[in-house]
Amino acid sequence: MCAIAGAFDVPNASYVISLMLKAMQHRGQEAAGIVSTDGKVLHDHRGFGLCDEVFANVDFASRLPGTAAVGHLRYATTGDSNSPECIQPLMAALRYGPTAVVHNGNLTNYRARRAELEEAGAIFQSGSDTELFLHLMARSHAADTVARLSESFTRVEGAYSLLVLTRDKLIAAVDPLGFRPLAVARLGKGYLFASETCAFDLLNVRPSLPVSAGKIIEVSANGDRSTAFAVPQRTRHCSFEHIYFSRPDSNAYGLSSNVVRERLGSLLAERAPAAADLVTAVPDSSNTVALAYAEKLGLPFRFALIRNHYTGRTFITPKQTARELGVRMKLNAVKSVVHGKSVVVVDDSLVRGTTAAKVAALLRDAGATAVHLRIGSPPVIHPCFWGIDTPRRAELAAAQSSPAQLAALMGVDSLAYLNVDDLRKALGDEAGNAYCTTCFTGTLPDEEPDVLDSELIRDR
Amino acid sequence: MCAIAGAFDVPNASYVISLMLKAMQHRGQEAAGIVSTDGKVLHDHRGFGLCDEVFANVDFASRLPGTAAVGHLRYATTGDSNSPECIQPLMAALRYGPTAVVHNGNLTNYRARRAELEEAGAIFQSGSDTELFLHLMARSHAADTVARLSESFTRVEGAYSLLVLTRDKLIAAVDPLGFRPLAVARLGKGYLFASETCAFDLLNVRPSLPVSAGKIIEVSANGDRSTAFAVPQRTRHCSFEHIYFSRPDSNAYGLSSNVVRERLGSLLAERAPAAADLVTAVPDSSNTVALAYAEKLGLPFRFALIRNHYTGRTFITPKQTARELGVRMKLNAVKSVVHGKSVVVVDDSLVRGTTAAKVAALLRDAGATAVHLRIGSPPVIHPCFWGIDTPRRAELAAAQSSPAQLAALMGVDSLAYLNVDDLRKALGDEAGNAYCTTCFTGTLPDEEPDVLDSELIRDR
Amino acid sequence: MCAIAGAFDVPNASYVISLMLKAMQHRGQEAAGIVSTDGKVLHDHRGFGLCDEVFANVDFASRLPGTAAVGHLRYATTGDSNSPECIQPLMAALRYGPTAVVHNGNLTNYRARRAELEEAGAIFQSGSDTELFLHLMARSHAADTVARLSESFTRVEGAYSLLVLTRDKLIAAVDPLGFRPLAVARLGKGYLFASETCAFDLLNVRPSLPVSAGKIIEVSANGDRSTAFAVPQRTRHCSFEHIYFSRPDSNAYGLSSNVVRERLGSLLAERAPAAADLVTAVPDSSNTVALAYAEKLGLPFRFALIRNHYTGRTFITPKQTARELGVRMKLNAVKSVVHGKSVVVVDDSLVRGTTAAKVAALLRDAGATAVHLRIGSPPVIHPCFWGIDTPRRAELAAAQSSPAQLAALMGVDSLAYLNVDDLRKALGDEAGNAYCTTCFTGTLPDEEPDVLDSELIRDR
Amino acid sequence: MCAIAGAFDVPNASYVISLMLKAMQHRGQEAAGIVSTDGKVLHDHRGFGLCDEVFANVDFASRLPGTAAVGHLRYATTGDSNSPECIQPLMAALRYGPTAVVHNGNLTNYRARRAELEEAGAIFQSGSDTELFLHLMARSHAADTVARLSESFTRVEGAYSLLVLTRDKLIAAVDPLGFRPLAVARLGKGYLFASETCAFDLLNVRPSLPVSAGKIIEVSANGDRSTAFAVPQRTRHCSFEHIYFSRPDSNAYGLSSNVVRERLGSLLAERAPAAADLVTAVPDSSNTVALAYAEKLGLPFRFALIRNHYTGRTFITPKQTARELGVRMKLNAVKSVVHGKSVVVVDDSLVRGTTAAKVAALLRDAGATAVHLRIGSPPVIHPCFWGIDTPRRAELAAAQSSPAQLAALMGVDSLAYLNVDDLRKALGDEAGNAYCTTCFTGTLPDEEPDVLDSELIRDR
Repeated sequence: MCAIAGAFDVPNASYVISLMLKAMQHRGQEAAGIVSTDGKVLHDHRGFGLCDEVFANVDFASRLPGTAAVGHLRYATTGDSNSPECIQPLMAALRYGPTAVVHNGNLTNYRARRAELEEAGAIFQSGSDTELFLHLMARSHAADTVARLSESFTRVEGAYSLLVLTRDKLIAAVDPLGFRPLAVARLGKGYLFASETCAFDLLNVRPSLPVSAGKIIEVSANGDRSTAFAVPQRTRHCSFEHIYFSRPDSNAYGLSSNVVRERLGSLLAERAPAAADLVTAVPDSSNTVALAYAEKLGLPFRFALIRNHYTGRTFITPKQTARELGVRMKLNAVKSVVHGKSVVVVDDSLVRGTTAAKVAALLRDAGATAVHLRIGSPPVIHPCFWGIDTPRRAELAAAQSSPAQLAALMGVDSLAYLNVDDLRKALGDEAGNAYCTTCFTGTLPDEEPDVLDSELIRDR
Repeated sequence: MCAIAGAFDVPNASYVISLMLKAMQHRGQEAAGIVSTDGKVLHDHRGFGLCDEVFANVDFASRLPGTAAVGHLRYATTGDSNSPECIQPLMAALRYGPTAVVHNGNLTNYRARRAELEEAGAIFQSGSDTELFLHLMARSHAADTVARLSESFTRVEGAYSLLVLTRDKLIAAVDPLGFRPLAVARLGKGYLFASETCAFDLLNVRPSLPVSAGKIIEVSANGDRSTAFAVPQRTRHCSFEHIYFSRPDSNAYGLSSNVVRERLGSLLAERAPAAADLVTAVPDSSNTVALAYAEKLGLPFRFALIRNHYTGRTFITPKQTARELGVRMKLNAVKSVVHGKSVVVVDDSLVRGTTAAKVAALLRDAGATAVHLRIGSPPVIHPCFWGIDTPRRAELAAAQSSPAQLAALMGVDSLAYLNVDDLRKALGDEAGNAYCTTCFTGTLPDEEPDVLDSELIRDR
Repeated sequence: MCAIAGAFDVPNASYVISLMLKAMQHRGQEAAGIVSTDGKVLHDHRGFGLCDEVFANVDFASRLPGTAAVGHLRYATTGDSNSPECIQPLMAALRYGPTAVVHNGNLTNYRARRAELEEAGAIFQSGSDTELFLHLMARSHAADTVARLSESFTRVEGAYSLLVLTRDKLIAAVDPLGFRPLAVARLGKGYLFASETCAFDLLNVRPSLPVSAGKIIEVSANGDRSTAFAVPQRTRHCSFEHIYFSRPDSNAYGLSSNVVRERLGSLLAERAPAAADLVTAVPDSSNTVALAYAEKLGLPFRFALIRNHYTGRTFITPKQTARELGVRMKLNAVKSVVHGKSVVVVDDSLVRGTTAAKVAALLRDAGATAVHLRIGSPPVIHPCFWGIDTPRRAELAAAQSSPAQLAALMGVDSLAYLNVDDLRKALGDEAGNAYCTTCFTGTLPDEEPDVLDSELIRDR
Repeated sequence: MCAIAGAFDVPNASYVISLMLKAMQHRGQEAAGIVSTDGKVLHDHRGFGLCDEVFANVDFASRLPGTAAVGHLRYATTGDSNSPECIQPLMAALRYGPTAVVHNGNLTNYRARRAELEEAGAIFQSGSDTELFLHLMARSHAADTVARLSESFTRVEGAYSLLVLTRDKLIAAVDPLGFRPLAVARLGKGYLFASETCAFDLLNVRPSLPVSAGKIIEVSANGDRSTAFAVPQRTRHCSFEHIYFSRPDSNAYGLSSNVVRERLGSLLAERAPAAADLVTAVPDSSNTVALAYAEKLGLPFRFALIRNHYTGRTFITPKQTARELGVRMKLNAVKSVVHGKSVVVVDDSLVRGTTAAKVAALLRDAGATAVHLRIGSPPVIHPCFWGIDTPRRAELAAAQSSPAQLAALMGVDSLAYLNVDDLRKALGDEAGNAYCTTCFTGTLPDEEPDVLDSELIRDR
């Protein structure tokens, strides 16, 4: 996941970025960082933890001064996340001047390119694929930052929505297939960029536009200048953005995630109806899907599961205790709602299947007489190479078992989900030219990654 | 608000308490603390912030060892909250041995008693009324801790649900009118106490019982022993626990808060129906009320407002910016849901009226054609002396203005709420003998506080 | 040891106190603290470590504002030094107003008085005997702070040089026998107090006067007022102040420590001459004694031992390593000076004898042909009850063994020291009416401590 | 200055290095760092401050495991010392494996080489010239680390005594002119390297040898292998090492600094005798020179100046106060010694002249009737390019003024110093082939630095 944000010609830019990052905190809780420019010097502050922790006690005006800034939220992945060098924005003192980069996505030929650059004497500071952009720009002799960045794009493959900050410019770019979302909006005479449009809403900034695949937008004192560095025939937007990642009040790739979710709920009611006393959601990401499902079927919707929103962190746990206690920190069932009732529980997606199994047990312990599980998307059967932290195939529940086997494993009375055509219909992409569905189909695109550096590929 | 928790004869007691506090984190986010006993020494750890911050990196086994512990969460009130001495549990090396106290509630004769004790040479360490219990026990020559604590109760007035921990005992008590909730449950052969029963649920501990008003329960190696120190004719349970404080999956005073809220929603639909395209809730505390309201009237329920759950802390804000930006961090409206629609928005209570005004503006900005506000309780017109952080009367919206005036002030098309009889009906207390409704009625009980020490009283 | 300092009517009082404490840092490295008053509120800052650590990054103007302040340095003793509650200044919110106390010395009847006060309901916060003064003042109904403090002196016995700070007054007092030093000087129209006069020198403040035994000096907006609360026939100044504690540039009890040390060196040359190639000192406290000794005997003085002044702290040591390596961090011998030479090494005192043994080994390893040890004071044979951290009798080298035995134990060719009459001569106190020599003689004074609370007493 | 240390095949290597650094703490107090290898991974810990601060609470066994390690102490220079990237050891993940470098000295062609490397795409992380070695090794295609390091030496000029640590090797090297000291010793079957031999003494390790100019020593599981990469005709050892930097118990370049200082004192007595009541030293670096001076002239030596050894850090100083108070934190005069006396004060060197002026005022304020200043070296008239933090020529007292003018400026009755021939005699280098004296003569060597990158050069 991850989130990026940028601001140019905006008073207190770094403070504004901190707010935008907070609005997108659901996209990454592991680390956060901001780099600002005062026109002469790039200032940075970063750290592990939530925005609230990283930017607590930071006096933005003195520590991160200036009217332009970029920020990043990091999602905890299985990689070497303990290294502070990996916290973005990455920065380097290029001979052209200090340069910062924030990047959402995953480069599929990172390892090969890194090896080539090291052979030529480059010293890498981090284990992050984002560092490739800095080395490629450092080695370019092109005329300006946009040209150096474009040159770097000829060497990398995969997903990259990124922002580059120099002393006096902010540059945004999205890869030729448009994997990850990036949007732009105006705040007064200034510019804002963000992975999700909910980051604009909190500033009362409307409307916004997606940054198109294959585009570079440079913003400077001379205003904005847009350049196409690729002309895509089709795109591979991430369908999981609408299913799970984005907040329902965001538009991704110009489409409302809430609208998609309402459609998913209705289609699910058609595809997989259930007879039960009530319908409930695994809060909060499945709320809209579940409500639409219930309404379509004329069943009562109920708040039967309560989420504890204060469970950011796991404490140092005395060993025997945690297992013996079987602690239910994140979710609890409301006994007065489910006791003696048959329940349809709707979840947004089926990956490992562990949450669903826990929810089923919770509901039964609270007295539910039957539990039917409905999933608002097709089951995930293949890992993702472009930036989603899906597990190896061996851990993907639906890649291993039939629906009936899964229902038994998870302890539910029935299990059903959408198929890929349903999903495409909900996305308004029946032809399948706009959205990537590799994780649901296992079909790799024609432009298949030639260098697959991730651990994930090993189980193919 | 605040929350307290206790455990006795429970392995890893301090770790268990930390989990219980996390389950009750909504009751207090300002500070947290735990004291444990290993039979010889009392160990403590406390700090400002969420449990996650205070107990991050704490190795419970070495730092807070033992099989008995008490914990406390502090709610930010207007008092001198910056002083670390005020973070509970309060501890003292009494000559009888080290003693820790956690307390939920407010003592109405604190200032008079403190002055008397200081005149007699007592040195107070904190500004917390809880410290009274320690000084009164220190001065008692009664035979044991329960007797010393009982003696102290003859000197204090007001609301107190408390837990006292010594080297080898855990003692729970609730004041004679039972203002604040406290429940007890068994974990194996051990004992658990908590302000809210959701703290038991996460440990899969059911069932639980409320600790009765006027009771002291002592738990030691000899098991439990219960003593009545007062025999109340009626109680004054806090009705706000069901309206707002408690999680819907908790029972307070033995009654499910979710059941009360469903009743409040239905009664509100009868008392104050509205014609609109959809009904929505101010999430999350109003969800159940709003859903019941919608269902009763046959209107569609929608998730039109999205809460950002990562807004724990306010950053150091550059001055002009915050105001100019009008940042909407906590809530956002889903444009695709409300655009072109008339909306009923249901909130749980009306205190200052500021949230409702913001919500109305949010909905209109997102395109709502009309906004009708419905409140699932009577308006608050009087401050509370027993532990709820209600503002002074001058800041209470409904104490100053008529509903029509309020609707105009808040920018809504209509405003309506429940009356006190509706509330009592929802609470199953038509006679008014069980629950306190002073904040809604302004009527003080016969046993009116003779010493009113709070700032709040000044505007009466 | 410990050090105290106070300032009244001095701009930036807390900053001035921090400098004075740094000048006296040799008297206590374990903890430091300052309390200042701005006329309304007492402000405090304290912590474990050197002044440099405790006050690093402290903005004195905002954190410790005002023109009056007191400070304290704590010497690591064998007691419960890990408790932050014990770091002075101790503070309490007495009903007369907030009050801070700093204290150098040791109260011999602490345990008995504490027990009495606890029986009467007092709650003690620390394990420090200094807290007695706060409780006794809290219980007094006398008219003003000086009167309440005087009243407290009727209840305590032992050594106390102390400073009391209230919102608008600074009060200094010295016990009736004048055990520990305290001096006063004027800075402009303001007042300074310090344990050692070197703290005045760094501010170019001269001259100064000792505060007399049995005197209270109150300084306020009305100037200074001195009161005698006892009229001593004789005093028991600490002779170790001149032998070891005080910096040579300080006057203690009105007498130059450097002058005393020159006399001790000359007397030592008479009492215990040695034939050798050179004389050296255990730096730095023995420098003056050794130089005077060498000069008197016409022997060359040499810097044969080098002290590393950066050894404040011991790291977490891998277990086997430290012993195997036999690390010589504090002192090293200069091989080119001692190789092939017979050496007289002069030390200021003989307590445990461990340093002398290490020095002897160092010198021999560097090639010294003979090592003669001379001590500039009588051997310590008895623990101290009034504030010096001498070990139990069992650990006192000279209490157990004859000089010849000691020489063999320490690996020196000869050992000799001064007798008590020599010491008294050097102190100008032939009659023995001014200085305490109990640690050298074992003779307790007539006014023997009736309550001996220290561990030390057990081995009598 | 700075100090470096290395250990190979030594149990608890990082802990041993921490001790060696503490022994050399006088060479650099600004920052410290250690990198160790456990054979597979390089571990690092570094920070601003003294060793005591940086390594407090570090568990060497778990945080810096392994039997080989290097360490560095940084001396505060005028450069960009605030950047943590500049704290050595510098580390890089070279494609040959992780590599750490510690370096004492200054590269005179740093800026030109950095510009060339950046033109070729290198990204520099720090402002430290030491980073050149890492980039040059990264770009080398030579067969092993020694060969890559040798290749890098063909590209750099100036002073470098350095240690390189890889997973399984420790490599030491000294530049062809041997500017800065580096010594080697054996601990058991392991190896130790250090800037000063006092770091060996604390481990009881004797004897040691200097690492020769132009030599590389590689230590690995196969033992040690020495290679000459240059064959110097003469060397340019730093004479200031003996005058001021080294501890008197150290040998530098195989020569005892204490012996040199005794010679300097005797020569000074011949060159610049003075008639006075006593001789004193500016402690501690001038002690030996002053004592030899006094003895040669038959004058009494006295400890008239006392140094406070706890003045590591300057606090946040309220502005007006510091100047008004004229705080004398570092040194104080002993009034009883100097009052009414004429005094010769001996200092080791004359750079800015500010210390001497302060000392003269101190002595006069304490009652000295005359103050004669004698300097144990020639006056510094030229900045240093090879690693000593001498100021610009404009700030060099003796570069601007005659001795008589200086005496007047500093407020002394007379001033005299050694000449360069005296210094060479004391160093045993009458021919001037072994030691560098550029800072005293202004004469640059034949192999004059072709690129002078330092600020210092501007005032030539």
